[in-house]
Amino acid sequence: MPALANKTYFNYGGQGPLPSPSLAAISEAFATIQELGPFSDAVWPYVNRTVSGLRQRLATWFGVDAARVAFTENVTSGCVLPLWGLPWEAGDELLISDAEHYGVVAALQELARRHQLRITTLAVADLTGDGDPTATAVNERLEAALSPRTRLVVLSHLLWNTGQTMPIAAVAAQLAGHSRHPWLLVDAAQSLGSLPVAEAAAAADIYACTGHKWCCGPEGLGAVALSERLLEASSPTVIGWRTLEHDGPGAGGYHRDARRFEVATSCTPLFAGLNQSLQLLEAEGDADARLAAIRQRSHQLWEGLQQSPGVRTLLAVPPPAGLVSLIMADPRGQALDPAAIVKQLGDRGTWLRTLESPRCLRACTHLVSTADEVERLLDQLSSLAKKAL
Amino acid sequence: MPALANKTYFNYGGQGPLPSPSLAAISEAFATIQELGPFSDAVWPYVNRTVSGLRQRLATWFGVDAARVAFTENVTSGCVLPLWGLPWEAGDELLISDAEHYGVVAALQELARRHQLRITTLAVADLTGDGDPTATAVNERLEAALSPRTRLVVLSHLLWNTGQTMPIAAVAAQLAGHSRHPWLLVDAAQSLGSLPVAEAAAAADIYACTGHKWCCGPEGLGAVALSERLLEASSPTVIGWRTLEHDGPGAGGYHRDARRFEVATSCTPLFAGLNQSLQLLEAEGDADARLAAIRQRSHQLWEGLQQSPGVRTLLAVPPPAGLVSLIMADPRGQALDPAAIVKQLGDRGTWLRTLESPRCLRACTHLVSTADEVERLLDQLSSLAKKAL
Repeated sequence: MPALANKTYFNYGGQGPLPSPSLAAISEAFATIQELGPFSDAVWPYVNRTVSGLRQRLATWFGVDAARVAFTENVTSGCVLPLWGLPWEAGDELLISDAEHYGVVAALQELARRHQLRITTLAVADLTGDGDPTATAVNERLEAALSPRTRLVVLSHLLWNTGQTMPIAAVAAQLAGHSRHPWLLVDAAQSLGSLPVAEAAAAADIYACTGHKWCCGPEGLGAVALSERLLEASSPTVIGWRTLEHDGPGAGGYHRDARRFEVATSCTPLFAGLNQSLQLLEAEGDADARLAAIRQRSHQLWEGLQQSPGVRTLLAVPPPAGLVSLIMADPRGQALDPAAIVKQLGDRGTWLRTLESPRCLRACTHLVSTADEVERLLDQLSSLAKKAL
Repeated sequence: MPALANKTYFNYGGQGPLPSPSLAAISEAFATIQELGPFSDAVWPYVNRTVSGLRQRLATWFGVDAARVAFTENVTSGCVLPLWGLPWEAGDELLISDAEHYGVVAALQELARRHQLRITTLAVADLTGDGDPTATAVNERLEAALSPRTRLVVLSHLLWNTGQTMPIAAVAAQLAGHSRHPWLLVDAAQSLGSLPVAEAAAAADIYACTGHKWCCGPEGLGAVALSERLLEASSPTVIGWRTLEHDGPGAGGYHRDARRFEVATSCTPLFAGLNQSLQLLEAEGDADARLAAIRQRSHQLWEGLQQSPGVRTLLAVPPPAGLVSLIMADPRGQALDPAAIVKQLGDRGTWLRTLESPRCLRACTHLVSTADEVERLLDQLSSLAKKAL
């Protein structure tokens, strides 16, 4: 991973480093397409094999049939595209967690404006404790927040701000028992490649992912797992040749499977790159083993931060995955500006990021994070907190 | 161009060959992003420079301000995304030419179904003569087809099936004089990189392009030029962080400029690749000079085909650009199957494609096409027509 050669990296939740074999796979795919085509009968079998190979691999990760997997350019498109073709009725409610990404929230606000839907809020950002009480609280709060008009629930699998995990399969089961059986949209931007996703992806109606964060694939390619009932109910909105079953005029209607949400030409070599990155992850162990390795480093970081003067982690317990968010204050208790800290750490070759809500720092550990890197970050944070006097 | 090393290529309208310097630019961009980031304060200036450099270059090609240019994954997204946020009223009419790509037509049909719009047709596929009578006919037919309910006109700049060019700027002027001033959507899939586009792109409301055909850029990146009145009237529909002016919660609303139609993460290295391809085209001469070179070969092909027994070109005159569509019959006058011809030519290393409506063959010539290649194609077509006895 060339990205890791010259820095101490903690932004896996922003973008993962691209392994050299994945960049090589991308370059080789470009070369193969040029050799066979780029537009010829000779190239289509290669393109189809590349796309369907990745679709099958992701389907295995998701624990669903490949017919339920659509490719998108990014996680936001996976979240949003299937929503616009659902049969909304004015007055329907969208129940959105208070820890969702602002891009998705803005899309939901526009959907609500156009269809006269009502937005209600599910508080989860304050759930910073252990998994079991968190799951219980989500269950109780969801029960209280659901109304006969609730038509969609929006909840991330791994919250991008606090780093808490949500009990997606349990939420799906709870929604199935609700009179309107609301759709469940799961933003899985932080979960594919970090958590085991099969149970959640199979249970959600829309489980939208990207390849460029924890999967360490190239930017510009994501995927979404869709439930059968959603495929049945939702019409495609952004339509192109890939949406259509029949490739020609007079069209034979939309694909019945998830491809109905694919649009038109995308970059095939990126599929080869992501496939390679996923294979590299698989070689490190199964999803549980990989999460255990991620947590070994995130726990080291979280525990070290408990000893750091002036630091408060958002999570009150060791993190369930690789996201560690924190707020820093100087010895007088004055909050330190996260952007200034990011800059000063960056000057030392250590990269983490700020978040705006809550205003904090976020450091991520991945499989490749080392104990030394975590110690270095802890030292650097301590020294910054002291200097801030 | 490695793609041209092992074949005789006539599918520039399907996908252009990627020049080696463009593939190198893509690989270098991936490497630079890894070196500086991939997610760090150090990488953003590079990413922003890469994206805005291409935006400025395309704006110059389009003859519009950079604020009117949005990036999309492909030409279809450029056509379709801006449509869903326009203020449609039930009963509005979409006037669609009979030579549009079936993917865009399917998208318009769904738009019409959702908003109870009416689809009407503008016949242009039969206009196979010279530019002036074609322009006159388009003007007259448009006048006859427009109604007080017409709200959108959809017309390609360079028709993908017949290879005819449409007088886009004149159509835009005509629509401006119409009481409802209908929007003008131009599918420019075949024109960017083959025709001078500045006049048309500046005149249309939506001028949607791709980088992977005549521009010889990588697949998976397109751009759309949008008029100021469209930017004013249309709300974004597929929304993500790139749509938003303020990068955070509570959002500051959408970008006022064309970025309001961009969504979320896309593949920055593709921007570097397309920029390189456009620079290579610029080095070959200005848009008029490049079109003259394209036409030199398409005229050679068209004229040769007039002498080929059993061949009928769709255009009755030498082509205005690089697309040459033809129908073949055996010496008994029996139509030959285009797919079988494509296969047999492919076996000889010569690549063109079939179209379904009208059912025909299409060969494209580009700047890099040689007189020898055109002669070879003519010989191969003649020999196939004779064998078909």
